[in-house]
Amino acid sequence: MTTTKNQTTITAQPGTPFIDMVREFDATPQVVYRASTDPELIPKWMGPRGLDTRIDAYDLRPGGNYRYVQTDADGNEFAFRGIFHTVEPGLRTIQTFEFEGMPGFVTLEYGTYEDLGGRTRFTGHSVYPSVEARDGALQMDMESGMRESMERLEELLPGLG
Amino acid sequence: MTTTKNQTTITAQPGTPFIDMVREFDATPQVVYRASTDPELIPKWMGPRGLDTRIDAYDLRPGGNYRYVQTDADGNEFAFRGIFHTVEPGLRTIQTFEFEGMPGFVTLEYGTYEDLGGRTRFTGHSVYPSVEARDGALQMDMESGMRESMERLEELLPGLG
Repeated sequence: MTTTKNQTTITAQPGTPFIDMVREFDATPQVVYRASTDPELIPKWMGPRGLDTRIDAYDLRPGGNYRYVQTDADGNEFAFRGIFHTVEPGLRTIQTFEFEGMPGFVTLEYGTYEDLGGRTRFTGHSVYPSVEARDGALQMDMESGMRESMERLEELLPGLG
Repeated sequence: MTTTKNQTTITAQPGTPFIDMVREFDATPQVVYRASTDPELIPKWMGPRGLDTRIDAYDLRPGGNYRYVQTDADGNEFAFRGIFHTVEPGLRTIQTFEFEGMPGFVTLEYGTYEDLGGRTRFTGHSVYPSVEARDGALQMDMESGMRESMERLEELLPGLG
């Protein structure tokens, strides 16, 4: 039996401030949610493989803050932070997101975990403060980083089941 | 000497998830910011005159939460809540906003206070998760409530200078 590889679908309609991502995983929502939100697991999948991720804070509750720093091969650091608005374990998170290199451009990130009967459909909906800010994020090659993150997350899941 | 009345300008471009508001006040940014963010003063101006506003929580710091309840003449209650992401006194706030009657439709609200030399230009930028959610908010007569709130806020300022 051959398994169809799970695909990452990223949609960014021109003229809107949204980026939408859909990705299915061969694991339950509980497992996908845990890998997505456990600060010990996040560095194992977040970002492209060439970056090192360090979690400075990750307080997973409404009003809790998070911050992480990614370091590239040349030692350049990129820091990101935000606050959780909604935390529904295994179902949904809604959180703010800010790249510290562009302060004031705060994004709202919706993450939804849908049970497909042992499999999971993860949906990410990113809302930027303007179409220009969204276009700027796309130009920073965010899309390939998102795809590589989802591949790394998939590789991590079998060890968690 | 006659004074030109300050106008509230509300912009909601079709096909976008944004509502933008601009309003000038004859008071300093410090005074306008205080009236806008002091939980003892907010009930004196927030919402149309027919509604009573009760503040349940107002923790004005990054990660702090707020919640308020508005009651109409028939006793119907409308509750709203969110979390502060950015708090720069006298300059800017960025916070999440959710009507508890429509859970999951979280908005990001930018408020900016610009110093015009003793006067203040307040700019509000609301970012909805979809165009449909934004259009729904407009249909709930949010616009007239915003205008009346700004009038009430203006009336409150002379006593705070």
